[in-house]
Amino acid sequence: MEVLTMIRVGIVGYGNLGKGVESAVSKTKDMEIVGIFSRRDPSSIHPHDANIPVYKMEDAANMKDDIDVMVLCGGSAKDLPEQTKEFAKYFNVVDSFDTHARIPEHFAAVDAECKESNKIAVISTGWDPGMFSLNRVYASAILPEGEAYTFWGKGVSQGHSDAVRRVEGIKDARQYTIPVPEALDAVRSGANPTLTTRQKHTREVFAVAEEGADLDRIREEIVTMPNYFDEYDTTVHFIDEETLQREHGGIPHGGFVIYSGTTGWENENKHVIEYSLQLDSNPEFTSSVLVAYARAAYRMNQEGMKGCKTPFDVAPSYLHPLSNEELRAKML
Amino acid sequence: MEVLTMIRVGIVGYGNLGKGVESAVSKTKDMEIVGIFSRRDPSSIHPHDANIPVYKMEDAANMKDDIDVMVLCGGSAKDLPEQTKEFAKYFNVVDSFDTHARIPEHFAAVDAECKESNKIAVISTGWDPGMFSLNRVYASAILPEGEAYTFWGKGVSQGHSDAVRRVEGIKDARQYTIPVPEALDAVRSGANPTLTTRQKHTREVFAVAEEGADLDRIREEIVTMPNYFDEYDTTVHFIDEETLQREHGGIPHGGFVIYSGTTGWENENKHVIEYSLQLDSNPEFTSSVLVAYARAAYRMNQEGMKGCKTPFDVAPSYLHPLSNEELRAKML
Repeated sequence: MEVLTMIRVGIVGYGNLGKGVESAVSKTKDMEIVGIFSRRDPSSIHPHDANIPVYKMEDAANMKDDIDVMVLCGGSAKDLPEQTKEFAKYFNVVDSFDTHARIPEHFAAVDAECKESNKIAVISTGWDPGMFSLNRVYASAILPEGEAYTFWGKGVSQGHSDAVRRVEGIKDARQYTIPVPEALDAVRSGANPTLTTRQKHTREVFAVAEEGADLDRIREEIVTMPNYFDEYDTTVHFIDEETLQREHGGIPHGGFVIYSGTTGWENENKHVIEYSLQLDSNPEFTSSVLVAYARAAYRMNQEGMKGCKTPFDVAPSYLHPLSNEELRAKML
Repeated sequence: MEVLTMIRVGIVGYGNLGKGVESAVSKTKDMEIVGIFSRRDPSSIHPHDANIPVYKMEDAANMKDDIDVMVLCGGSAKDLPEQTKEFAKYFNVVDSFDTHARIPEHFAAVDAECKESNKIAVISTGWDPGMFSLNRVYASAILPEGEAYTFWGKGVSQGHSDAVRRVEGIKDARQYTIPVPEALDAVRSGANPTLTTRQKHTREVFAVAEEGADLDRIREEIVTMPNYFDEYDTTVHFIDEETLQREHGGIPHGGFVIYSGTTGWENENKHVIEYSLQLDSNPEFTSSVLVAYARAAYRMNQEGMKGCKTPFDVAPSYLHPLSNEELRAKML
């Protein structure tokens, strides 16, 4: 009989992502949560599984021998740039750092700590960066002559929803990013179209206004907002608070990576590679990706590897609970 | 200035796949074809690039220091079970071995040779096995509670076309495998349907009959043919030879891997991950995958790795001509 070694997982931060990690680990047979770490008062944190202990963030370093991999569930703006490199001093770590432009700098900082501690970090897991990035790399490696198109949605953009909430007279709001169907079709046809920002996505806002607010002024302020809405066609719907809660309470998201390339001496043969996600819960899916890469980080470190990695550097077999032999027999 | 080391590639077998490899390598900046090896008389082989030398198969071993990786372009039934392990004695090798049931045995034989020779083999690249397998593994690693559905087509099945050609009274034929749209939609809805073979695909045959042949008898013989057609709804069209050449001369293929899974404590959130290929030329796309894995095989061997690998064991970054640093900056 095979003795199963359980991978001991710690969760850093217990917001939507952290809760998703607790749930995702419960669906595995080879991993277990041994602690949740928070900046908040531990007594104020109530894990779904009441048996899971909650610790103060600063107690983590004392538990370096009790935890195989730490899953960092903070935000990319302020938490992860500090936390990932700090925790990499003591633990294998994974994060979903998603500020694309700052990835090289985050990578370098985390890599330096990992080289010291002999640990593995896998950064920028999730779906974009993450699964979408992987598909861009596989497709362009296979078909060097081609172009990648990424579309997001239909889904809730937290950043755009927040931007709308900052408009005077707005009580609450939800913003959906929606790919333009004609743009998707043009890309799928293999036509390699040049698409402007406006041609790729539309934006739809469901807003609750304060009583007596000037709706025309609010609408105008939203659709012309620089960086967020001015380059898009945006539709604003005013609804009541109850409708917002009832019909727009979820956090769905998803999108498409469509790669269109050619082969043949005259580039006479077209090929379209499409990867798409349709997610009821953006954070729970991201958590599930984090957990798969947590397994990979542990296994790679067990084999003696160290340093900072991204999904590009992780062989797919490390993510999967089945052995390589089983994967070959059942999934190849 | 960076000095680019060209990866020296040999092609074993110059049929559709081998020709596709020659063309695919011409689209890279870091690889070059240094020879084609054939069982046929070398003077009867005419590469697209007339400067590429053609050798007899048995001369390959003498060129072990001149070739970094051999791309094996033979068939899975008879060629690869012998060739991959034989060439792995002298070279890094890649193949597109696609007899799913015999992969474990092929792997073991090739691995034994690689361990002796300190070379890398990557077997079963291509798209199924290959890219489709990767997507099954990534998706089921991320969402352990879910189900993978694979659909093939619309595309030409060589095996089924050959089977039709063996029917008495048939001069030539082309068989298309077609996914049933309603089945695709049911899977995409996240309903996790149980689908019979008949519900997943239909088959369409374009056949040229000999003059005076009994078309009803031929049609009956085709649609009831065991293993090939009896479990499917098959439509047979009789056309003339010229139409067959004109309208059915290509070798398109493709298909879908759709994974439908759930997250949340009550599995209340559904997620659908879909990967699809739409290929004008099945062999040229497969060749392009072989070439990307040839790059990976060479690089992994350069780093000291050896043994038989599958796409599951190869980190995506090895496939791509860009450096890891560039990949992180541009594609993550």
